[in-house]
Amino acid sequence: MTKLSRILLTGLPLLTLAAADPKQLTPTEIVAAAPANAWQTVPADDLLLMDLASGQRVAIALAPAFAPVHVANIRTLARRGWFDGTSINRVQDNYVTQWGDVTEKKPLPPAIAATIPPEYERPAAGLSFRSLGYRDAYAAETGHSDGWPVGREGGQAWLVHCYGMVGVGRGLAPDTGNGAELYAVIGHAPRHLDRNIAVVGRVLGGMESLTALPRGTEALGFYKTADPHPGIVRVRVAGDLPLAERPIYQILRSDTPAFAAWVKARANRKDDFFVQPAGALDICNAMPPVRLLPAQ
Amino acid sequence: MTKLSRILLTGLPLLTLAAADPKQLTPTEIVAAAPANAWQTVPADDLLLMDLASGQRVAIALAPAFAPVHVANIRTLARRGWFDGTSINRVQDNYVTQWGDVTEKKPLPPAIAATIPPEYERPAAGLSFRSLGYRDAYAAETGHSDGWPVGREGGQAWLVHCYGMVGVGRGLAPDTGNGAELYAVIGHAPRHLDRNIAVVGRVLGGMESLTALPRGTEALGFYKTADPHPGIVRVRVAGDLPLAERPIYQILRSDTPAFAAWVKARANRKDDFFVQPAGALDICNAMPPVRLLPAQ
Repeated sequence: MTKLSRILLTGLPLLTLAAADPKQLTPTEIVAAAPANAWQTVPADDLLLMDLASGQRVAIALAPAFAPVHVANIRTLARRGWFDGTSINRVQDNYVTQWGDVTEKKPLPPAIAATIPPEYERPAAGLSFRSLGYRDAYAAETGHSDGWPVGREGGQAWLVHCYGMVGVGRGLAPDTGNGAELYAVIGHAPRHLDRNIAVVGRVLGGMESLTALPRGTEALGFYKTADPHPGIVRVRVAGDLPLAERPIYQILRSDTPAFAAWVKARANRKDDFFVQPAGALDICNAMPPVRLLPAQ
Repeated sequence: MTKLSRILLTGLPLLTLAAADPKQLTPTEIVAAAPANAWQTVPADDLLLMDLASGQRVAIALAPAFAPVHVANIRTLARRGWFDGTSINRVQDNYVTQWGDVTEKKPLPPAIAATIPPEYERPAAGLSFRSLGYRDAYAAETGHSDGWPVGREGGQAWLVHCYGMVGVGRGLAPDTGNGAELYAVIGHAPRHLDRNIAVVGRVLGGMESLTALPRGTEALGFYKTADPHPGIVRVRVAGDLPLAERPIYQILRSDTPAFAAWVKARANRKDDFFVQPAGALDICNAMPPVRLLPAQ
């Protein structure tokens, strides 16, 4: 066994060689070289911060352009401290981690819309769109809209169920979700859920604190009542915090040359490790790069 | 919050209603109803059993039809007890869990082929093949061969990097992998690795013992030297164990009517939860069903 095995599967070895030819920049190098104006800051009112009893923090960007009523509910729940003291109740391998009120009896604040529209998709008109340009099993077209991974077909657009995307749990009836029970995708993209559930956001930070949890052993990965349920200390909207306590998440803008170069490099890996570039890219392998800046 | 939220995201509610019309059987029901001869038993010499210090066991089906030299190496390593006392050294979120000799100095048995052919793909001729029938971003065609998920293009076929597939770590040179360092995919399918690495198997049991681990905090998800490294007590080939100690894993045969019905039902979810069936399926959402029978 040689030390070479340490760099296997990397996609970023031999940076200096690759950097010698600008056409050969790796995806990571392209992101590192992107100018400041290629990045968009997640608005503080669209940034949800979930602090776990483990001491870990999960940061979630909300998507009001796709699910405005659900997002309004979630903001209200966070502002009323409704999530504080709830827990992670379900971890199903290769599927979802889900959290909310395990008792299912905690009263919702009166300001919460109890019955809300499905918001599973919306008209594509009015949304920016950059086509990814590769085949997709599920949608006529996939691409990016303002930093979000989307599917498009028949004049409609929707957020796709990629790893790290956050959706709203619901019962059988399409209008039974309200945002008080949320899940994050922790496995291969369950794209059959697209357009069947309201997708409301994306985990930008702390994903590992949702994925490295013990899997639940009840049906569907729910924890048994007697199992420890990872606690949620508090959930807040970043915009409600003092400036100095607001983390600043930025997403590489999907309408920039840097993003186009990044997609091309991801689809045609030229690093020395790759002997056969794919020449293609799946939308869920094209999740826009994220960076975290220090609070102001 | 109603109890309904407990059944969200299931795909298997209201079994009795669905069962009333055979056309409406859910994927789970189709698998449950498959006749005995729709199942193929994984040959005991192709079944690798990895016992972890945590007390958990990982069962891996090997794929000699796709990577015969690598698989021969892995069998030899297991038979010589080479993996015993090694560890899991890397857990990179949304990518891979990887194991082997952390010292990278453990001598290999003399019977191990040190330099072996890449075995990243093989001629499609001579392999059974059932086309999945849906678009794929990466391959001209995807489908199943003898229970394995495969891509096909230009007369070649290869195992695809789906969740739970096992590959051989290597360095930059294509012939530097030998089977002593293995990884399992624990995130969205990194299909750009297809045809760039030897895929040698699939985790059939115990996947959660590889996915629920703390992520490594070194570059590429390697554990720091001082971190606890989950221990590997032993790795054995099931065929070398007494009959009574051999678990019997079976895979739904991809050349059966039950499999065709299962694919169709997966692509067109009709359970009451779904308001909009996808009408499509990604190869990595079509991993052939597995069941575990008691040892003989």
